[in-house]
Amino acid sequence: MTDSHIAEFEQDEEYSLNADLIDAILSAVEAGHQGRLIALLEPLHEADIADMLEQISRSERENLLQLWGHEIDAEVLSELEQGIRDEVMRALPDALLAEAVRDLDTDDVVYLVEDLDPPQQKNLLGKLDDADRVAVEQALTYPDHSAGRLMQRETVVAPSHWNVGQIIDYMRAAEDLPEVFYDIIIVDPMMHPVGDVRLGLIMGTAPEVLLAELMTDNFRTIPVDQDIEHVAYAFNQYHMVSAPVVDENGRLVGVITIDDAMEVLEDEVEEDMNRLAGLRDEELSNKVWLTTKKRFPWLAVNLFTAILASLVIAQFAETMEAIIALAVLMPIVASMGGNAGTQTLTVAVRAIATRDLTPANAMRVVRREVLVGLTNGVVFAVIIGIVGFVWFGDAMLGVVLGMAMIGNLLVAGLAGILVPIALDKLGADPALASGAFVTTVTDIVGFFAFLGLAAMLLL
Amino acid sequence: MTDSHIAEFEQDEEYSLNADLIDAILSAVEAGHQGRLIALLEPLHEADIADMLEQISRSERENLLQLWGHEIDAEVLSELEQGIRDEVMRALPDALLAEAVRDLDTDDVVYLVEDLDPPQQKNLLGKLDDADRVAVEQALTYPDHSAGRLMQRETVVAPSHWNVGQIIDYMRAAEDLPEVFYDIIIVDPMMHPVGDVRLGLIMGTAPEVLLAELMTDNFRTIPVDQDIEHVAYAFNQYHMVSAPVVDENGRLVGVITIDDAMEVLEDEVEEDMNRLAGLRDEELSNKVWLTTKKRFPWLAVNLFTAILASLVIAQFAETMEAIIALAVLMPIVASMGGNAGTQTLTVAVRAIATRDLTPANAMRVVRREVLVGLTNGVVFAVIIGIVGFVWFGDAMLGVVLGMAMIGNLLVAGLAGILVPIALDKLGADPALASGAFVTTVTDIVGFFAFLGLAAMLLL
Repeated sequence: MTDSHIAEFEQDEEYSLNADLIDAILSAVEAGHQGRLIALLEPLHEADIADMLEQISRSERENLLQLWGHEIDAEVLSELEQGIRDEVMRALPDALLAEAVRDLDTDDVVYLVEDLDPPQQKNLLGKLDDADRVAVEQALTYPDHSAGRLMQRETVVAPSHWNVGQIIDYMRAAEDLPEVFYDIIIVDPMMHPVGDVRLGLIMGTAPEVLLAELMTDNFRTIPVDQDIEHVAYAFNQYHMVSAPVVDENGRLVGVITIDDAMEVLEDEVEEDMNRLAGLRDEELSNKVWLTTKKRFPWLAVNLFTAILASLVIAQFAETMEAIIALAVLMPIVASMGGNAGTQTLTVAVRAIATRDLTPANAMRVVRREVLVGLTNGVVFAVIIGIVGFVWFGDAMLGVVLGMAMIGNLLVAGLAGILVPIALDKLGADPALASGAFVTTVTDIVGFFAFLGLAAMLLL
Repeated sequence: MTDSHIAEFEQDEEYSLNADLIDAILSAVEAGHQGRLIALLEPLHEADIADMLEQISRSERENLLQLWGHEIDAEVLSELEQGIRDEVMRALPDALLAEAVRDLDTDDVVYLVEDLDPPQQKNLLGKLDDADRVAVEQALTYPDHSAGRLMQRETVVAPSHWNVGQIIDYMRAAEDLPEVFYDIIIVDPMMHPVGDVRLGLIMGTAPEVLLAELMTDNFRTIPVDQDIEHVAYAFNQYHMVSAPVVDENGRLVGVITIDDAMEVLEDEVEEDMNRLAGLRDEELSNKVWLTTKKRFPWLAVNLFTAILASLVIAQFAETMEAIIALAVLMPIVASMGGNAGTQTLTVAVRAIATRDLTPANAMRVVRREVLVGLTNGVVFAVIIGIVGFVWFGDAMLGVVLGMAMIGNLLVAGLAGILVPIALDKLGADPALASGAFVTTVTDIVGFFAFLGLAAMLLL
């Protein structure tokens, strides 16, 4: 790596926010130095400015916005996470906000206003041009989380009998081509999309070639009310770059591009990850009280299941009084089961989301999980059996520990795979609450197997 | 929703694999009916064929490949997960494999061969045309997981003094434009990229306009040895569609497009999710023994930490013998701590990955987690205190339970946020093993606080 390369890399890193830059911005705000603030923010991408606003404190944010005020870019608003966005939008003077929003594409306006209170929403929409307002209101009629909310309405279409020369002339003459487009959508006279042609392909083809001859194999339409989770899956699975969106009559109403799908895809994986941990749509900038409320339900479920496990333990109070080593050792078996179950569960939840786990291979995967549980169970049974024997000098105690370990890791594998499959079959989200089910099973089985075997074999 | 819409949606779903289609394919294989097999596979996207191959059993796969053999498409190979891909590539006759691979773009060949054994790799590369082989060998000199491995080498470049008419004429005349490209990269005479121009923009602009006037604001180059995780972050953060890749001298060597970045992004989130659950690059088609080996290390760590927790409990054996209710109740406090810690940990790991948690707001986030832990701690202390009192009729036992709960949820919040921050500062992956650290802390603190307080206050 040469010096020039290092310099370039660091420069590249400078583009992102770093602590020094944030310090410089905050000290400009504190000094009330508007020129310096604007000079510092000007080279930053809107997404970085939004990140910076999220990372500073509320009072710093207020001061910054006041000083920066009339320069704010609406793109920054669409990059903010919701909590901070609401705060910033409330802090901006009405006229400024309206001016900012008028600069946005309609799909960005939809994103911005869809979660506002109705009066706020109406107020903001009233500030748009008539055409834009109608477009936004139309988009808002589609269900939340649907393709209709995600799509842009601006598309470039052509009939299939056109040739390359005709579409190039058409685009040349067009007043307002969409800001972003990668394909020409080929439509029939009823505006049903029948194929698409990549821009790059048009560039390299002679003017007399028919567009119909250039259409890609990989063409799919998206129903306007399809859940965006399925949209993102299709983009990822089929390496799509853009896809036409059609209404219930199969007519073109818009287009979704890969950059929108990419954000949805990341959100969906993150949602699975969060749900497995018992989190609900939490943002880092949420206040303490909101965060507490959002995390409470999962912890409450866990309290309930922990009490269930304690009820199981209570059945063996006498056994434990006789052999206190049981109380010392019993969390080990339960804890191992919880971890093994979570491993299987995480694999299963992702495999269902990516459609890698289907009825076609479910039985094979279940069998694999059982065998993995059994194998790891035997290995850890030997280890923990020896530990128990050495620690308490009781060979039979080691045997009981080992047997309980095998049983619980087997059950962990089974529960980890069957719970999400069952939730999916019932139409529920496999990630939601499956963690609670699985660890409840492994806790209860872990305590019951260990203490039950001990009661039978050691007393 | 009208009937026609439902029909369309179902048809759309038919494109994906479903159990009926897989059954039909397998029965064609069993009947040895090649024509039917080919007819069933022909309309499927390569990604769906790959999924199907992953979901059927090994012997079914062998029979299918034998019957389908000479029709296999190399794209299917690049869609397969690694374990199955190796198996399929070994099963294919050498000549067939070479023919298939020759059809691929060089970046797909790189993806296919980078994990092969050196002799296998050499064998396969020997079958490529000289130009392609050199290109692939060049790509393989870049570090694993770097931009150089991900990029495609085919680009369209133009000097900044060209106008729209010139670039269109140039593309018309070009022999082999890249299959996929969204931008023209503007370079200086030394082949340093200085900007890019969207294809769509060129389409809508008069021929005499200079390309230099059409360059996007949002232009960034990617160093060829940059980790693809950072590449994916940049694409997502800055809504990039394609970006030129440069060598250590800043010269253009290739281009990365958003579809590649999208896959990396999904992989990275999934990796975080898996690491939190103690999983390592596992595939659903991995055999039992490989899966067991991959899951073993995390479970071994957990066994060790569970034994540590038992050592803590052992210190209070006499206390438990005196009051057996302690043994019954003690898992509750530890379990709640583990869950609360995992919630905080999951939030922190994602926030570090998306660069939302930085030195600028770390203190504020730590404070928030402490307060959330404290608040939930107080709420659950009251609940569990009452439960303990009612269950065992001992008010002081309830007080001890409640105090231990507050302490452990506070520690859970602290550990959940500080462990990943510390790992990140040390240059380690915040997701790796943080789960083990955090639950070790909450187990030990949970048992110690509850039993220790009980020893002090109840005996």
